[in-house]
Amino acid sequence: MQNILIRFAFNGAAYHGFQVQRNAPTVCAAVQDAMEQVLGARPDVKGVSRTDAGVHARDFCLSFFADTAIPFEKLPLALNSRLPPDIRVWKALPVPADFHARYSALGKEYHYIIRNSPVDDPFTDGFYYRVPGPLDAGAMAEAAAHLEGKHDFASFMGISGDVVENTTRTISAISVARAGETLTLAVAADGFLYHMVRIIAGTVLEAGLGRLAPQAVPDIIAARDRQRAGPTLPAKGLFLHRVFYPEGIIRA
Amino acid sequence: MQNILIRFAFNGAAYHGFQVQRNAPTVCAAVQDAMEQVLGARPDVKGVSRTDAGVHARDFCLSFFADTAIPFEKLPLALNSRLPPDIRVWKALPVPADFHARYSALGKEYHYIIRNSPVDDPFTDGFYYRVPGPLDAGAMAEAAAHLEGKHDFASFMGISGDVVENTTRTISAISVARAGETLTLAVAADGFLYHMVRIIAGTVLEAGLGRLAPQAVPDIIAARDRQRAGPTLPAKGLFLHRVFYPEGIIRA
Repeated sequence: MQNILIRFAFNGAAYHGFQVQRNAPTVCAAVQDAMEQVLGARPDVKGVSRTDAGVHARDFCLSFFADTAIPFEKLPLALNSRLPPDIRVWKALPVPADFHARYSALGKEYHYIIRNSPVDDPFTDGFYYRVPGPLDAGAMAEAAAHLEGKHDFASFMGISGDVVENTTRTISAISVARAGETLTLAVAADGFLYHMVRIIAGTVLEAGLGRLAPQAVPDIIAARDRQRAGPTLPAKGLFLHRVFYPEGIIRA
Repeated sequence: MQNILIRFAFNGAAYHGFQVQRNAPTVCAAVQDAMEQVLGARPDVKGVSRTDAGVHARDFCLSFFADTAIPFEKLPLALNSRLPPDIRVWKALPVPADFHARYSALGKEYHYIIRNSPVDDPFTDGFYYRVPGPLDAGAMAEAAAHLEGKHDFASFMGISGDVVENTTRTISAISVARAGETLTLAVAADGFLYHMVRIIAGTVLEAGLGRLAPQAVPDIIAARDRQRAGPTLPAKGLFLHRVFYPEGIIRA
């Protein structure tokens, strides 16, 4: 059995997240369905993250063991021929037996997309959170910069059923960039708490709307209190943009 | 009665072009339906172009006469509230009585989008023509450059029912730019023949695939023979990107 990593993009609009759930379509189940048809077996899969309902991915990573005669470079096309068009595999490669899509990852980069316009865009509808009024991108960038580095991000964690003992994470890079009507908040970190990027986006947005002074962010971090941070923005603006693995298992 | 110009974007996938046709959904009919609900009357409209079935627009322009108490700056939102999400009005403004969306236009810019990848993109599916193999963007740019200027573009005109006496047009700017897997052919001209951009895209693509020498383009122009140019690429990759009007009726 060979350990295999596949990397794929998906439009999360139609899915209840990645992980298999009873009575709800998930990305994982769709991928396993395609694998079953292509490989003749339904492998157990390890996903890099769970992702919430409605979240999108440009680089979702998943590892699984399989025996297959299909060359790795042909596996994406073989799987894509069986997948719905909102999931597209762009890479498949052999990885060492001890590789695990989640535990081998060094970090991930998420993008949160805000459309700053009174009008929706018919070509990217469903892939952003829209803010009609004026937004101060400079204040947003300033607020975001305070989050960079190693911090206890308890103020930026949503309530889930899981017990999380350690809420310290390291944000290696965070930025806000405007291109026309589109603002992109990019956050790279070694790990993310539940809803962390969506709460960071909501907090940074408050600064952009003039409701929060960027220099208040360190106090919000120090408070370790979810009530102090901004709202959790909707899933539809969030993209898992890139996953970082050790040298050798790199993006093509 | 006030002459009014509205500018809007539409995803053309669901429409049989702009112009009203019997028994087929058109953008024009959808816009007139919304106008009827918002304005209480169904005005005659003048569109900047006819556009083929499946073609998209970021800046479609349409003028019409109406009496309305709604301020112009609120008209886009009022119309959008009655329009399907694949049509979004982003501007409405009063124009002189002799303004006509089509005849007052100085020129238009179209973009043709090619995705150069073996894999489709779930986020822009339907908004490009995909070419899986290697593409020489430099050769495409070189081929395109030969089309710039005032030429008889008879070789780049598709067959329609219309009689076209003058097939001379002036391309003021043409370029091919690559951004990752996306190639954008941008063509600005004072006017366009039937299928002109899609045939230019097909011809330029032949150069990118190594099937046509860029320096052969002047001969193709001189031949005035549709058979000599490349194929007509599909509608889904084509966007009406911008319309140029005389100073004073400018894009916001």
